[in-house]
Amino acid sequence: MKAQPPGPTHAPWQVLQSREIYAAAPWVRLSLQEVRLPDGRVVRDYHQIALPEYSVVFAETEDGRVLVERQYKHGIGEVTLMLPAGLIEPGEEPCRGAQREMLEETGYTADDWKPLGRFVPNSNYGCGRAHLFHARGARRVAEPNAGDLEEMEILLLTRDELFRAVREGRVHATAVVAAIALATHPVLGAV
Amino acid sequence: MKAQPPGPTHAPWQVLQSREIYAAAPWVRLSLQEVRLPDGRVVRDYHQIALPEYSVVFAETEDGRVLVERQYKHGIGEVTLMLPAGLIEPGEEPCRGAQREMLEETGYTADDWKPLGRFVPNSNYGCGRAHLFHARGARRVAEPNAGDLEEMEILLLTRDELFRAVREGRVHATAVVAAIALATHPVLGAV
Repeated sequence: MKAQPPGPTHAPWQVLQSREIYAAAPWVRLSLQEVRLPDGRVVRDYHQIALPEYSVVFAETEDGRVLVERQYKHGIGEVTLMLPAGLIEPGEEPCRGAQREMLEETGYTADDWKPLGRFVPNSNYGCGRAHLFHARGARRVAEPNAGDLEEMEILLLTRDELFRAVREGRVHATAVVAAIALATHPVLGAV
Repeated sequence: MKAQPPGPTHAPWQVLQSREIYAAAPWVRLSLQEVRLPDGRVVRDYHQIALPEYSVVFAETEDGRVLVERQYKHGIGEVTLMLPAGLIEPGEEPCRGAQREMLEETGYTADDWKPLGRFVPNSNYGCGRAHLFHARGARRVAEPNAGDLEEMEILLLTRDELFRAVREGRVHATAVVAAIALATHPVLGAV
């Protein structure tokens, strides 16, 4: 990384005003902000979209199978392969939320948990936070009891079967493909 | 992938009604839908958030440097490492949009383009589509002229420098980390 000539200040934008346009707690809060940029320009209508934070888990069993959920997702509009995932409860640690959701959705638990990072779905508007995890040694300890709106089929895929599904376009959610690629990446996943 | 017992139908949800709550074209459109689930239940207030589609490019020069943009992003709330990215114009092919944005933002062009997939930022609400690309043989042919709100610093990082940035939490956008992990993944990136 070479030294850069003096240039951008990278100062945060200054929020002059924020007006709530719509709120349906805890699902969606849409605001319109008036912001001042570092160069002095003022933008009067910059949107921010607050959505709940959620966790996504790439979980592998002792015999190397990945816990995958096949389900219709309405934001995607078709059947897709997901990983165990769900909203984090207020005050809940993201990893604890991931463990709870995986147990509820699949009946699996695991002892070995590693964070893969915390990411923002939309760099302009926000749209929540995705906390990604890699769990190893997953084992079934209960019946699934997700209570979700979606019908769900639980699959135990090998990494190669899941990689093929990614290449064939059967994995649609950005945070899900990010978790798969990070967890199985020889450098990025080796933290 | 083992055969599954008869279970979920995976039928799409049926949209009974859709009511626009807020629209600021072409940036945001928020709708409230009444949907019928395959089991017959009706949900009266399911949100859908339409945001513009965008492209993200993992671009490498002939000497193996990755084109990275360092900038403050308001949806993240801090300085972050991005890849060339931008909204796709109406009627524009995603790859063409990626090429246009990369040229505008960095002054670089490339001949070798490979799609890494099309992904949905929020599997419940939508929030647009992210089209990810891997470009090779990138070379500078013009001055950058992005016209974006953000000040931007263009870095040419080695893969290892970028991997370190990911591990240190300096890459925040889900689609950006997905593009990095997919493009450099020995199996997923080898399509």
